Amino acid sequence: MSVFTTVTPEDLAPFLKRYAIGTLVELKGIAAGITNTNYFVTTTHGRYVLTLFETLQAEELPFYVNLLAHLAHHGIASAAPIANFDDQYIDTLNGRPTLLVNCLPGRVVDSPNAQQCAQVGEMLAQMHLAAQSYSGRMDNPRGLAWWTATAESVYDQMPAAEVQQLREQLALQAQTDYSHLPAGIVHADLFRDNALLDGDKVGGFIDFYYACNDVLLYDVAITLNDWCVTEDGDIDAQRARAFLAAYQSVRPLTVEEKAAWPLMLRAAALRFWASRLLDFHKPAAGELTFAKDPGHFQRVLSKHQARTDFWLG
Amino acid sequence: MSVFTTVTPEDLAPFLKRYAIGTLVELKGIAAGITNTNYFVTTTHGRYVLTLFETLQAEELPFYVNLLAHLAHHGIASAAPIANFDDQYIDTLNGRPTLLVNCLPGRVVDSPNAQQCAQVGEMLAQMHLAAQSYSGRMDNPRGLAWWTATAESVYDQMPAAEVQQLREQLALQAQTDYSHLPAGIVHADLFRDNALLDGDKVGGFIDFYYACNDVLLYDVAITLNDWCVTEDGDIDAQRARAFLAAYQSVRPLTVEEKAAWPLMLRAAALRFWASRLLDFHKPAAGELTFAKDPGHFQRVLSKHQARTDFWLG
Repeated sequence: MSVFTTVTPEDLAPFLKRYAIGTLVELKGIAAGITNTNYFVTTTHGRYVLTLFETLQAEELPFYVNLLAHLAHHGIASAAPIANFDDQYIDTLNGRPTLLVNCLPGRVVDSPNAQQCAQVGEMLAQMHLAAQSYSGRMDNPRGLAWWTATAESVYDQMPAAEVQQLREQLALQAQTDYSHLPAGIVHADLFRDNALLDGDKVGGFIDFYYACNDVLLYDVAITLNDWCVTEDGDIDAQRARAFLAAYQSVRPLTVEEKAAWPLMLRAAALRFWASRLLDFHKPAAGELTFAKDPGHFQRVLSKHQARTDFWLG
Repeated sequence: MSVFTTVTPEDLAPFLKRYAIGTLVELKGIAAGITNTNYFVTTTHGRYVLTLFETLQAEELPFYVNLLAHLAHHGIASAAPIANFDDQYIDTLNGRPTLLVNCLPGRVVDSPNAQQCAQVGEMLAQMHLAAQSYSGRMDNPRGLAWWTATAESVYDQMPAAEVQQLREQLALQAQTDYSHLPAGIVHADLFRDNALLDGDKVGGFIDFYYACNDVLLYDVAITLNDWCVTEDGDIDAQRARAFLAAYQSVRPLTVEEKAAWPLMLRAAALRFWASRLLDFHKPAAGELTFAKDPGHFQRVLSKHQARTDFWLG
């Protein structure tokens, strides 16, 4: 569940008086999401999403909130933050920092087709370009050092063959230099459940709370690894080609990026293998969600290790 | 017509490459509007309006464009400017400064009902509050001095009785001090053709190019004089009460504003009587539009002069 802090219509009425979005018609908790409290807020003007931040502190929020505003100003399909009458995006309700955004059209699609993967690829490239002028900076807290430390903490609970694979692949990544590749703001978690599709169009990318500065190709790999994956951890070539062609129609990959692409696909798989291992073997106290299968990303990684065609041709 | 500068799909393709809004699907000139060129631009991402400014210069635009952005950030139903990859709202196409905005829902309503007038009143009040934090400033170029000079230029073409009425009412306004009333950004031209209604909701206020700093009550009067008017220049009491009650549900008028209200209604009528007299008797060279009847606002003014109930009770 995702309502950690309860909000009543009586709480919300004075809060809404600080905004130009009308008066409350309906208030409804949102079940999705595992770290923040989210409500659908319907007013006389329209439909909005209210987030109460449960773990991020007010001083950490400007990077994310201003990024959302920046992307929305550029026409990227993402939630547009709404400022209050004090001209602030971040307000406070029931002791939590809050953000109010417009409600995006569309729904999560579990089994996207090639056309939908292409739309996501195109929007991702537009997002990478639009974010080039964003002035905020955030180091990636989930980079190679984190993968390595996380792996160390769970090796003793893993089968020997998997330990060997993980150690070898981490060592390979540690020897690989991506620092010459185009960088900028990446979403870093653009899985199917973090995008709303409105038919074949992208209604909106959501949940930017892993966004950070990193190599753009890393975002491409993370996104492909989820959107184009098959149940057995392989990649569907048709979806992958559609996704990559659409991405490159906006931002063609450089020669250096194409050369780095096979190993980057493995890096993106390693990132989520590591975090799923952690969630599986060391669940956070009080965590109510079911840990996702770490084996999925081990299989994605293995398929990438064995692959010879990477859909760029 | 309102396409003064022709734009072809071939012109637009490289222009759109500077934006994150996809590629061109359809381009269509917009017939409404008399000072700028407007096109509907449909892309793979959605529908937008492209304005090419024909008379405003690039250095005059930031006030208007940043105002639109400010209002949109606050959730006011108005067009949201879209920034290009250089993070600029204002770009250039075919020698003209341009603005690209999202397309608003709804349509112009000629005969609004009381509920629609109420929605407009409520949104106008929200707009007045949201604009209080806007830092841009623009003096009203169409204030009392302009009405007076304009009247002087057309007295010799008007019937004696109307000259007398206009002189007397201008003299009365010149003796009236509104400087103690709440002020801020006003739209100053919120007629029925400058708002889109989406059913009973406000889809968007448009055409902010008369917006300026002035007394808020002046905007309320201008808007009421058009939205609640009957064909003979009288005001429909039901619509006027609904409009004012909704406005006051967001921003209650002060005692001073209520006292000033009867004369402010006349001031708002004088503003448009003067400009219509000018358009009628001294049409701009090459002006292709039909001048609207100045007599309409003379009748609105006369009705206000004879009125005893101003719908505030």
